[in-house]
Amino acid sequence: MNKSVSIGYDTKAILSEFMEEVWNNGNLDVVDKFISPPYVIHHDPGDPWEGQSLDLATFKKRVLYSRQIFPDLHFTVHEIVGEGDKVAISWYLHGTQKGDMEGLPATGKRVKVSGLTIYYFSNGKITGHWQIVDRLGFVQQYSQ
Amino acid sequence: MNKSVSIGYDTKAILSEFMEEVWNNGNLDVVDKFISPPYVIHHDPGDPWEGQSLDLATFKKRVLYSRQIFPDLHFTVHEIVGEGDKVAISWYLHGTQKGDMEGLPATGKRVKVSGLTIYYFSNGKITGHWQIVDRLGFVQQYSQ
Repeated sequence: MNKSVSIGYDTKAILSEFMEEVWNNGNLDVVDKFISPPYVIHHDPGDPWEGQSLDLATFKKRVLYSRQIFPDLHFTVHEIVGEGDKVAISWYLHGTQKGDMEGLPATGKRVKVSGLTIYYFSNGKITGHWQIVDRLGFVQQYSQ
Repeated sequence: MNKSVSIGYDTKAILSEFMEEVWNNGNLDVVDKFISPPYVIHHDPGDPWEGQSLDLATFKKRVLYSRQIFPDLHFTVHEIVGEGDKVAISWYLHGTQKGDMEGLPATGKRVKVSGLTIYYFSNGKITGHWQIVDRLGFVQQYSQ
């Protein structure tokens, strides 16, 4: 049996609210309600901050970076699996590329990408993640 | 709190044994001990059987397909997060490309790729998965 350790807070509810408020609504004023710096990007191939430990300001910069490229970006959480201080989510991201990316000036193209992430919690706040994004599926949309 | 529902079997232990026996050791005689067909590939961009429901024979064919290309393939499970009938794993795959792939004849190249998978269980057996593989990271190793 998978053992459940009662940790006194609802990681899945916190993560769902974080995805909605911070990533989908771009509300940077509430970031410190959800994350506890340093926020560690353990593994996230292709992410500009891959492998780094982010302070609060840098974390906000990372959200802004994505939202400047895709101002209407929207994560749809497909499934959520939580155990103790870890929560895995599968997701789809939709967005319109209004800003420049490295090697790819703004195209106005509407893109969709899927991914999976494990988020780590400590004392009710998010402390980092391990993520795989279907980067090949993303870039292939530009050759169509 | 994340609620734990006792389901009478240890999904994480079953999945770990499945990865080792079926994928790493290539022991196809025990596949029916672990999976309950149809095995549904809900989402797995780039997989030749993406979106399909596999019977036992086709599932074995899928394992053989990968192991013929990478006879020494080895999955290292990095983390495992289980809740009820779902188990998420993050993993690294190492292998030497001894067989031909579509558009890529055998190179003898030793490659490494990372991924995340959510496995679905029913009555103690695996019934399918939702997976993201870092395909871009994989193909980029061939241009180095």
